[in-house]
Amino acid sequence: MEQNGNQNRGTGDRADLVPRFAGQGYTCEQVAERRAWVEAKTGASLELVGSYSIPSEDLRGNVENPVGACQVPLGVAGPLDVAGEHAQGRFYVPLATTEGALVRSYERGMVALTRAGGVTARVSLDRNRICPVFCFPDVASAHAVAAELPERLDVLRAEAAETTRHGRLAGLDCQPVGRDLFVTLSFATGDAHGMNMIAAAADRVCRWIVEHTAAERYLLFSGASSEKRASGSILAGGKGKRVVAGARLPRRTVRAVLQTTPERLVDLWQHTVVGHLQAGTFGYNGHFANGLTALFIACGQDVANVANAAVGITRFEQTEDGDLYASVTLPSLTVATVGGGTGLGTAPECLAMVGCVGSGKALKLAEIAAATLLAGELSMGAAIAEGQFVDAHEQYGRNRPPAVDDPHPAGGEGGG
Amino acid sequence: MEQNGNQNRGTGDRADLVPRFAGQGYTCEQVAERRAWVEAKTGASLELVGSYSIPSEDLRGNVENPVGACQVPLGVAGPLDVAGEHAQGRFYVPLATTEGALVRSYERGMVALTRAGGVTARVSLDRNRICPVFCFPDVASAHAVAAELPERLDVLRAEAAETTRHGRLAGLDCQPVGRDLFVTLSFATGDAHGMNMIAAAADRVCRWIVEHTAAERYLLFSGASSEKRASGSILAGGKGKRVVAGARLPRRTVRAVLQTTPERLVDLWQHTVVGHLQAGTFGYNGHFANGLTALFIACGQDVANVANAAVGITRFEQTEDGDLYASVTLPSLTVATVGGGTGLGTAPECLAMVGCVGSGKALKLAEIAAATLLAGELSMGAAIAEGQFVDAHEQYGRNRPPAVDDPHPAGGEGGG
Amino acid sequence: MEQNGNQNRGTGDRADLVPRFAGQGYTCEQVAERRAWVEAKTGASLELVGSYSIPSEDLRGNVENPVGACQVPLGVAGPLDVAGEHAQGRFYVPLATTEGALVRSYERGMVALTRAGGVTARVSLDRNRICPVFCFPDVASAHAVAAELPERLDVLRAEAAETTRHGRLAGLDCQPVGRDLFVTLSFATGDAHGMNMIAAAADRVCRWIVEHTAAERYLLFSGASSEKRASGSILAGGKGKRVVAGARLPRRTVRAVLQTTPERLVDLWQHTVVGHLQAGTFGYNGHFANGLTALFIACGQDVANVANAAVGITRFEQTEDGDLYASVTLPSLTVATVGGGTGLGTAPECLAMVGCVGSGKALKLAEIAAATLLAGELSMGAAIAEGQFVDAHEQYGRNRPPAVDDPHPAGGEGGG
Amino acid sequence: MEQNGNQNRGTGDRADLVPRFAGQGYTCEQVAERRAWVEAKTGASLELVGSYSIPSEDLRGNVENPVGACQVPLGVAGPLDVAGEHAQGRFYVPLATTEGALVRSYERGMVALTRAGGVTARVSLDRNRICPVFCFPDVASAHAVAAELPERLDVLRAEAAETTRHGRLAGLDCQPVGRDLFVTLSFATGDAHGMNMIAAAADRVCRWIVEHTAAERYLLFSGASSEKRASGSILAGGKGKRVVAGARLPRRTVRAVLQTTPERLVDLWQHTVVGHLQAGTFGYNGHFANGLTALFIACGQDVANVANAAVGITRFEQTEDGDLYASVTLPSLTVATVGGGTGLGTAPECLAMVGCVGSGKALKLAEIAAATLLAGELSMGAAIAEGQFVDAHEQYGRNRPPAVDDPHPAGGEGGG
Repeated sequence: MEQNGNQNRGTGDRADLVPRFAGQGYTCEQVAERRAWVEAKTGASLELVGSYSIPSEDLRGNVENPVGACQVPLGVAGPLDVAGEHAQGRFYVPLATTEGALVRSYERGMVALTRAGGVTARVSLDRNRICPVFCFPDVASAHAVAAELPERLDVLRAEAAETTRHGRLAGLDCQPVGRDLFVTLSFATGDAHGMNMIAAAADRVCRWIVEHTAAERYLLFSGASSEKRASGSILAGGKGKRVVAGARLPRRTVRAVLQTTPERLVDLWQHTVVGHLQAGTFGYNGHFANGLTALFIACGQDVANVANAAVGITRFEQTEDGDLYASVTLPSLTVATVGGGTGLGTAPECLAMVGCVGSGKALKLAEIAAATLLAGELSMGAAIAEGQFVDAHEQYGRNRPPAVDDPHPAGGEGGG
Repeated sequence: MEQNGNQNRGTGDRADLVPRFAGQGYTCEQVAERRAWVEAKTGASLELVGSYSIPSEDLRGNVENPVGACQVPLGVAGPLDVAGEHAQGRFYVPLATTEGALVRSYERGMVALTRAGGVTARVSLDRNRICPVFCFPDVASAHAVAAELPERLDVLRAEAAETTRHGRLAGLDCQPVGRDLFVTLSFATGDAHGMNMIAAAADRVCRWIVEHTAAERYLLFSGASSEKRASGSILAGGKGKRVVAGARLPRRTVRAVLQTTPERLVDLWQHTVVGHLQAGTFGYNGHFANGLTALFIACGQDVANVANAAVGITRFEQTEDGDLYASVTLPSLTVATVGGGTGLGTAPECLAMVGCVGSGKALKLAEIAAATLLAGELSMGAAIAEGQFVDAHEQYGRNRPPAVDDPHPAGGEGGG
Repeated sequence: MEQNGNQNRGTGDRADLVPRFAGQGYTCEQVAERRAWVEAKTGASLELVGSYSIPSEDLRGNVENPVGACQVPLGVAGPLDVAGEHAQGRFYVPLATTEGALVRSYERGMVALTRAGGVTARVSLDRNRICPVFCFPDVASAHAVAAELPERLDVLRAEAAETTRHGRLAGLDCQPVGRDLFVTLSFATGDAHGMNMIAAAADRVCRWIVEHTAAERYLLFSGASSEKRASGSILAGGKGKRVVAGARLPRRTVRAVLQTTPERLVDLWQHTVVGHLQAGTFGYNGHFANGLTALFIACGQDVANVANAAVGITRFEQTEDGDLYASVTLPSLTVATVGGGTGLGTAPECLAMVGCVGSGKALKLAEIAAATLLAGELSMGAAIAEGQFVDAHEQYGRNRPPAVDDPHPAGGEGGG
Repeated sequence: MEQNGNQNRGTGDRADLVPRFAGQGYTCEQVAERRAWVEAKTGASLELVGSYSIPSEDLRGNVENPVGACQVPLGVAGPLDVAGEHAQGRFYVPLATTEGALVRSYERGMVALTRAGGVTARVSLDRNRICPVFCFPDVASAHAVAAELPERLDVLRAEAAETTRHGRLAGLDCQPVGRDLFVTLSFATGDAHGMNMIAAAADRVCRWIVEHTAAERYLLFSGASSEKRASGSILAGGKGKRVVAGARLPRRTVRAVLQTTPERLVDLWQHTVVGHLQAGTFGYNGHFANGLTALFIACGQDVANVANAAVGITRFEQTEDGDLYASVTLPSLTVATVGGGTGLGTAPECLAMVGCVGSGKALKLAEIAAATLLAGELSMGAAIAEGQFVDAHEQYGRNRPPAVDDPHPAGGEGGG
């Protein structure tokens, strides 16, 4: 077990690299051999890591230096009735997590929503974005190109189309900052996440711009498109799908299932939105990150996209007749049903649970995700409003056997 | 397969709930029975989900309504030499991901750092925080309590100690906003994440405050502590561990392994930090979210914490003698080695790979995590600076067999 | 002197109101009578306040309950050579301030810029914005209107045109958040600030929307257009003019006038941009607020707009041949040359100093303002980089007679 | 008139500088001579600028290159009853502005508050801050100093005390970012703004640190203290005074004076706070910038501080018995009653109107300012909630004679 020794410090020579195999080494034997090497180097036993059931050659393109797979417990929450443009019907949602009480809490919100007649969901924008930056000799030349480039959209679109049949350059926005020019390129990427696809297309567009304008050079990623990070600009229409989900919940349903009242939830909203302001958070929500993470791990999404997708706005309002109107708005929900990890191992099984396998299903998945988050917001909001958060976690948390088999616990995760 | 039909919309009665079992149902048979029910309801086959190797009773406390486990491919990257106060030696880091090129990219950064002599890492703060809000009748009474409460820290600490032996109330900060009072409670939580622990302790403290002051009521979570979300306040010292990692890389190492120069990386930094400003992001980094997510899934961390942990600051500087000084600062790195999912299934095996199983290891894990992220920043930064991002992904991305077995690809994930 | 007594607390009856006069009271006598009343009520002597030279009837429409005028010291800084599309030539800029060293510091930057060949400036966008919010019964109806409204731009433009000849509805952006719909209306307002003009036009548009869609009601101001406040959305193209100004400064000029080097300024930039990230500021600049405030007071601008106009990005870069390229980007510069206070008293005189009186001059003023701010950034940056900030203030600050008559002090204001 | 000609472009030689006089030139004659030179250079007539009544020698230390003064119309609003710890009684507030309807709108809010029994105000923190940054050779040395420096507070305080009798180093906070160390120094500055004072003290402290630690150099201003700019960190306790003001307004007063209801104001708050979230603003308020700017110009404050002072949080809440509770929270209110422009010309007269001349009055001024802003929030909020904003501006705006002499208009400025 070498890791705590210093004998090799400062060398890092090739002998210490994780073993290389022909064709990168994705056969079962090569994975096993590599795993054994790691076990020898680190002293760890990787038995469970090695007991994976994904065909090992399928790992190619999704991971390098493979040694097996990690297992994340999978629970299921529902029923969740959704009335979207793409998702319609009753759903049972797969949630992969190790956080006790999370699944139960989302389930409680789903029951409340379903009893209330279900969730309405809509996708209002579906774009992935990339923002290269171009360097110019002075502000005048950057300004001139910013003024002219939008008129060349057709040419740029043709360039992009040379690299991909699936992504289409939909729009262009130029922002000069000093003598730099930030060019946001918006793409329609169908059911794929499409980041690699649009990177290749954007690279082609960039080369055209450098050849045909005063731009001296470019960086393909400028940081301005907020890939995998939270930002203020996401709220104005971020990467991926912009989705809204809402429901009207009768007072009696709020009382019966969530064990609170519309007034309490609105009161909670007013106080905690100020807490968010005080912290300087983007948007406002109770725990989008929890539900998104669990759904993303289950469904083979790029889980790091939680960083941007978790920015959004939850609202609890009282209607004129005393009911609750609850909604979530997700400006940057990055979900896919083809490509990436969506076809690998357990992911297609989880996608199948919600009828979202393959082409033509990404918008459906987006609506289901938004409805799921709305359930989580209601349940955790109710738990906090009624002071039941701690009790719920003591009931469902690790190593605490439940006193009763209550189907509607108050809990939730990580209120913040 | 019921999910696309509307026959049951609006009812959500108990018969539609995921089946309930005595003791919540964590035996293998109960899990299988539940899985069969879900298969019947949704039409999905859950064969791979069902082929999990975590002992099913171990799932209790980590997930409800369990139907099995998801599998996430695990790669390993290294060698990574770290010289921390807690982590010392050579490490091989487990990364669970489905994003092609990610592991290879982090590996490339690790090789560069290790050849350069390794990474220095330090933890400067180790606190978890919770911020309840108290409602007062007017601004004067909220102000008065804000002025007095810090003097009662000892009493509050004693109250908190009634609920837990592991968490200690370390500090108190009062911020009146109108007639509300936001009270940030800082806890030392040892090697546990400790959110549930400090929620229970804080609840006790809150009750004391309501009993002994003019406060009329409280909400345990105000939103001000930025649990599982990005915020500006995180940068001033957020939840969890505040960690810094840095390394000086000789120009020749930058050239040989990263295939770029210090000048190019500093130039990249200057342009992309402006891109971050333009987007209105918190802090600056290339893709913290990628490495954190992969490490968190592997090591049984609460993956939703990526939302806060991914806020931080990367720096590339040129030294006076022309080398590169690179660093990452992570104000809110939430890692644990006990509790939560850290003891479950594949997680302890991955933690064992980096020598971080159990008590006394959380700070070590924090230093290794920071060093890992630094590797990722260098590698992706170099790829973007040199215009090699697209090539690297075409080489390692899904379904594209590599032309060569180059150990040092340029790639990285999701540059944003 | 009543203000410290409590005898009238809680009444606030009409007798305590500042005196009312027929026609609101804008004659000299009425102003004097009101001033005397205030003197009697408060015990203050308002002799200097009363010695104003603006014709008193001119105050109508600009202030209510007038008692005179405040005097703010006016300095002048220059020469400043500008090569804009609208501003061309040599300028002397009026700066109204009470902050010692401010005028001298801006002057120093101007001398550097002018010796370097002057400042290039460009206006890339000229829009004022207002964002009403519409309330809908549910997310579906809000979504539907968001999808359709952009197609009705012509109708809405005609409605807006009924209220004003000067403002033109240029664009429309719909953002549903839950069941609310935020509709940003962009107007071209010519040389006027135009906030009142576009409020009236927007109100008309809003009424049309409520009459013709499912919208139940509206609020004319939603907070989303960032009038008179800083925000992340400003950086993506805010209210008013988006302006950039830049200059290449030879190393010898940086040395001779600013007494520093390009390297030092770039080093300063790198460290202080991290400081801005650490604070969670929007954008990056040294002290835009100082120059803007002084120019706005002098030129009769709406000074409260400094809150939005001071958001922007300063850059210091080293060119390949070792010179300095410096630039400022101002996404939301709100300046006017007609309407508001621009025609009142000393304001037209100050506008005349820079050739910006009346119609057709707002873009010229915008370019001059940007060039002025660039001068301030250079001078203060140099002072901080060279550790001369304190000395400069001790030389020029209040009650400290200068040791020498150096025309190029290091100082600046409020480095933050 | 040279400004539009290019004959001298690129020279900027000394002959073009604004004329230099012995002792910098603050006599009446020198000011007049300089003014004449500017008139000749620019073609502008500066007659009103020249008709200032501030003794010209008093301008020294407040402005360089003086040519006279600008005049800003002064209105007065009241009565405003305040029950603070420092401000107690009935006040008439001086507001210098050119924005029609602003004074009337603030007055309306003041009448409502005074009839309701007045405003309660409190100052909870009174600190000015400066944040130098220190450069270290590596992260380890920066970390080590961050850990040790807080223990040297006494030594640093003694150093600071060498430079000033008025400012006292109150606290110290160290934040390492990579190998940089940001050290926030908090000072008590009494009744002065104190920025120059604490800059000198901090400079001394910095020199000590460089001499006694591994720090290689420092920059006195790092950008992290948010001087004259908005930032997220301001909300956690910014520069200057942290002030809260609140009032309970009976429903009948809301109805009679503000012509709206508590329900409408709470509804407005809920919708517009979402608008602020959508824009990515810090905090939430209707138009703090308007009242602050008008008060700051009148009272000789550093008006550029509006950039930071305008960050804050307004709340409208309904009480259990159906009344309104309204409050404002100002985390960074930068006001002074000694130093800067507070003693110059019309400023002391305006300060005298609110009983805030000289030493011991800054906290009183802070409480009055907060109460004033609360009035403005109520009045503009009511105008927007009731759809009367446009009417009010048509009544009071420029060149529109009022139909009636209503003392309680609906208007306000710049709703955003």
